[in-house]
Amino acid sequence: MADPARRPDNRYGSRPTMKDVATRAGVGLKTVSRVVNGEPGVTPDTERRVQAAIDALGFRRNDSARVLRKGRTASIGLVLEDLADPFYGPLSRAVEEVARAHGALLINGSSAEDPDREQELALALCARRVDGLVIIPAGDDHRYLEPEIKAGVATVFVDRPAGKIDADAVVSDSFGGARDGVAHLIAHGHRRIGFIGDRPNIHTAAERLRGYRAAMADAGIPVQDAWMSLGATDPERVRRAAAEMLSGPEPVTAFFAGNNRVTVTVVRVLSERPRPVALVGFDDFELADLLQPGVTVVAQDAAQLGRTAAQRLFQQLDGVLAAPERTVLPTRLITRGSGELPPAD
Amino acid sequence: MADPARRPDNRYGSRPTMKDVATRAGVGLKTVSRVVNGEPGVTPDTERRVQAAIDALGFRRNDSARVLRKGRTASIGLVLEDLADPFYGPLSRAVEEVARAHGALLINGSSAEDPDREQELALALCARRVDGLVIIPAGDDHRYLEPEIKAGVATVFVDRPAGKIDADAVVSDSFGGARDGVAHLIAHGHRRIGFIGDRPNIHTAAERLRGYRAAMADAGIPVQDAWMSLGATDPERVRRAAAEMLSGPEPVTAFFAGNNRVTVTVVRVLSERPRPVALVGFDDFELADLLQPGVTVVAQDAAQLGRTAAQRLFQQLDGVLAAPERTVLPTRLITRGSGELPPAD
Repeated sequence: MADPARRPDNRYGSRPTMKDVATRAGVGLKTVSRVVNGEPGVTPDTERRVQAAIDALGFRRNDSARVLRKGRTASIGLVLEDLADPFYGPLSRAVEEVARAHGALLINGSSAEDPDREQELALALCARRVDGLVIIPAGDDHRYLEPEIKAGVATVFVDRPAGKIDADAVVSDSFGGARDGVAHLIAHGHRRIGFIGDRPNIHTAAERLRGYRAAMADAGIPVQDAWMSLGATDPERVRRAAAEMLSGPEPVTAFFAGNNRVTVTVVRVLSERPRPVALVGFDDFELADLLQPGVTVVAQDAAQLGRTAAQRLFQQLDGVLAAPERTVLPTRLITRGSGELPPAD
Repeated sequence: MADPARRPDNRYGSRPTMKDVATRAGVGLKTVSRVVNGEPGVTPDTERRVQAAIDALGFRRNDSARVLRKGRTASIGLVLEDLADPFYGPLSRAVEEVARAHGALLINGSSAEDPDREQELALALCARRVDGLVIIPAGDDHRYLEPEIKAGVATVFVDRPAGKIDADAVVSDSFGGARDGVAHLIAHGHRRIGFIGDRPNIHTAAERLRGYRAAMADAGIPVQDAWMSLGATDPERVRRAAAEMLSGPEPVTAFFAGNNRVTVTVVRVLSERPRPVALVGFDDFELADLLQPGVTVVAQDAAQLGRTAAQRLFQQLDGVLAAPERTVLPTRLITRGSGELPPAD
C-alpha cells in the first residue's frame, strides 16, 4: 500500500553553490572557500557573515568529485533507535545488504531513544557526507533535517514516520495488526483484555492502542481505563502494570502486548502464575514457538521494512522518485497457543 | 587479568604534519594544503607527488581545531561483525554509553563476517575522521590498520584479538569457560559429548574447542573426530551436525554448543526428540531460563566487554596507556536444568 503525500514540489532540488554563498555574504569566492576549508586569512567578522550565509542557504561543500578521486566509497547512514532491541537486528542487516548491492557502505548510529541524540547523530552523519539517511526516529520533530534534504541528502524514515516534515516513510500496519490480534482474543471468549504498550508519544504505540480500541469497539466491549497502560518498556514498569491488571475482583483474562520488549516480560510474569492467562504480542521473537505455551504474535517483517526503506533511499538518489510517500507493510497473525487459551474464569 | 604485550615502543607516536609532507614531496606548504583540501591550482604531477608523500608518511589532516570551531562532535567508530547476532546488542550499547559519557558520538558499521568488508569499513571510518575504533574483527590480518594507528587513531579489538599486529584487545575467557562447561557435563556422568562450534578460523571458536579438548583430556576421555563439528552457524549446518552426532550405535548423550547461534538451533533439534539429551551453551541468551528445561550456559558479560574496550579506547586517546595489552574477562556457569540431565542410556 502506498499513500502518496500531497506536497507537490520536488524535494530533490538543486544544491546551493559556493557562489550562492559568496553572493549572499557579499564576499569573494576565495573568501568562502577559505572559511569552508578552515584556512586562515579571514577576519572573524567576515567569517561570521559567510557562516550566516552558509546556514541560511543550507550550503554543504559538494565533495563528490573529491570523494571519487580519492577512492572513497559512497555511504548511507542508518540512525537506529535502540541497539539492544533484537527487532532492529534483521532490519539493520537488510539495509546493509541493499547498501552493499549498491556498492555503498552503511554507517549506523543509535539515538538510544533520545530525540536530541537522534538529531546530533543525523547531522553528524550528514557532516561526514553520507549520501542518504535511513532513520528510525526517536523524536517527533524532524524540521532540523530540512536544510540537509534541500542540500540533496536522501532521507527515508522506517518503523515510524517523520514528524513535522514531509518525508518518505516505510512502516508496518500497526493499527490493523493490533486490531486483528485483539479481535483474535475476543474470538476466543475474552472480554477483559489488558493492553500494555510503549510510551504514548511513540507513533507505533499510539497506533497499536488505536487498534486495540477499535477491536473492542467492534465487539461492543466498553474499555476500562485500568486495562490500558502505556509507558517505558523496562521490565519493572511492565511487570507492575501486568500485576495491577491481574489483581482485583475483575482481573483481565488476556493481554495484548504492544511490542516484543513488553511481550517477553509478560511471558515471564505469566510463567510465575498458576492460572493460565492468554497473550498475543506485537512482533515475533526468537524462541517464541518453543515456550510453553508457544506465544501467539502479530509478526512484522523487520527485514522487509529495512529492505524497502533502503531501496527507496537508492531510488531517491537515482532521482526516480517525485514526492515523499508512506509505504505500509502488512502484519501477520501467527497462532501458537498463548492466544488461543480460553478465559480462566 | 592483563597480559602486557612485549612491543616496547610507544604506539601513540607523534602524527606527521603537513610540513613533513611538504618536505618529503619537495613542495611548498600551500601546495600540500591545496591537495589536502581538494582545491584547484595543482598540476596532476605535483598532486601525485604530494599524495605519495601523504601515503608514505601516513599523514591525516588534523582537524581537531576546526572540529571544535565548527561545533562538530568527537566520534569513535565501532566495527561489528554481525548486526543480527543479539550478543552484540548489549556490547554495542555499552560502547555507546561510554562514548556518550566522554561527549563523543558512536558510529557503527558491520563487516557482515567479511574480512574485506571489515577493512573497507574501518578505513572508511578513519577517512571520516573518527578519533578511535573499537573492532570486533572478522579477519585475521590487521596490518592494514598500521598507518592509521601510527597517525594517531586509537584502536581496541573486542571479543577477538587483532591478527598480525600488536593491539589492545578485550576478550572473554573462551578457553576456561568452555573447559568449565564441558567439565560440568562430565561431572553429570557424560562421556560421549558433542562439540558444535563456529568456523575454526575464528579465534573464539578455536579457543572453545581447545577448552573442550582440555576438559575431556583432564577426565581421561579419548575424543572421537565425529564428536567435533566446526563451521558456519546457520541453522541448516548446525542441525545436520547435531543429527549426525545423535545417530549411530553410540550417539552423544550431551552437547556443548560453541555460541548462542548454535545453542538456539540445538535447543530446537532436542525439542523434537523423545529422549532427553544434555546441553550446555556458550553465551547466555534471552528466555534461556523459560525454556523446558532451562538452558545451562557459560555466560559472557557482553556489556562489560564493550565497556572495558571503550574505556581503554578513551585511555589511549587521553595518552595514559603505554603499550597494547590483552584483557581477559572471566565467564560464569549458570545452571538451569539442561546441563544437569544425566545420560539417557
